[in-house]
Amino acid sequence: MNTIDSMERLIYYFCKLPGVGRKTAERYAYKVLDMAESDVEDFASSLIDTKHNVKYCTKCGNFTEHDVCDICKSRQSDVICVVKEPKDIVAIEKSKNANYLYHVLHGTISPMENRGPNDIHIKELLGRLDGIKEVIIATNPDVEGEVTANYIAKLLKPLGVKVTRLATGIQMGSDLQYADEVTLSKALEDRKEI
Amino acid sequence: MNTIDSMERLIYYFCKLPGVGRKTAERYAYKVLDMAESDVEDFASSLIDTKHNVKYCTKCGNFTEHDVCDICKSRQSDVICVVKEPKDIVAIEKSKNANYLYHVLHGTISPMENRGPNDIHIKELLGRLDGIKEVIIATNPDVEGEVTANYIAKLLKPLGVKVTRLATGIQMGSDLQYADEVTLSKALEDRKEI
Repeated sequence: MNTIDSMERLIYYFCKLPGVGRKTAERYAYKVLDMAESDVEDFASSLIDTKHNVKYCTKCGNFTEHDVCDICKSRQSDVICVVKEPKDIVAIEKSKNANYLYHVLHGTISPMENRGPNDIHIKELLGRLDGIKEVIIATNPDVEGEVTANYIAKLLKPLGVKVTRLATGIQMGSDLQYADEVTLSKALEDRKEI
Repeated sequence: MNTIDSMERLIYYFCKLPGVGRKTAERYAYKVLDMAESDVEDFASSLIDTKHNVKYCTKCGNFTEHDVCDICKSRQSDVICVVKEPKDIVAIEKSKNANYLYHVLHGTISPMENRGPNDIHIKELLGRLDGIKEVIIATNPDVEGEVTANYIAKLLKPLGVKVTRLATGIQMGSDLQYADEVTLSKALEDRKEI
């Protein structure tokens, strides 16, 4: 094959993106050849800027380009929503009426991976409870997420803070026959009067 | 949502890649945050290098970082394979025993899009026939590709060059019942004695 060094390097890096194989990376590289030079330059600088400028908010642990993120800076709320990763905030912010403060744990408790409560940002959460009425624990509904949620709940309840957890159940718009049995049992158990 | 300017810009550019939507672009951007700083810098410079350094081979029209591409520089052959785009060369080079010279038309004749024979690199092909015994026309087996192939064939035959076309037929490893009727008729018509 014709060796084009810089293009091969570019394909190599595109291949590092999640879910991108050689063929897709090649298509991306061809697209770059078709793009305007100024766009490619801005693309490249946005890569570097993102890596250089984006850091974690010193208050909540969300991504930000400043010391404190926009949400911490501008939002008033007595509810903190606790999430595993910064990208979970993006998902929650898209939901209706989301007007919470956030706290990013940057991980979950995982005995399997030798990660205890002190390896994630729980201590920092305890320092933020002044004036907070409710803490919603929005870790994933998997084993690690549940363990982490229970651990935090036990820690916070004695402090007089209301601790809640995202509801689990069958997905909106889904088909009952495709729901897994764990979800369905949980949905039956948590049934609500209408 | 939390506004992170450089990340938004990066997501915007990832969205310009073929087949990449907002969600995928976000995943790519998160991946960039996880990458080592030196890797991100090399990723960015490979983008710019690709755009700056990659140009067309002055002989065949393939991608290259030099005046003449590696294939034209190093390969001896009396067969030229004519393709529509440089990326077609990559595909052909992956096939067994590919040892041809190439000629990239950079398009096909298309009355619909007002593109005539003078708008693609046919003239350049005529100037390369010295010592060439065969020209394989490997344009796509669609209307524009066929029109272009026939046009070139008519031009070259009087010059005493053998002109061939890629065989069309049912795909290797495919299932007859899924072959479209045009392909199947053509395969029957072109049947070979075994």
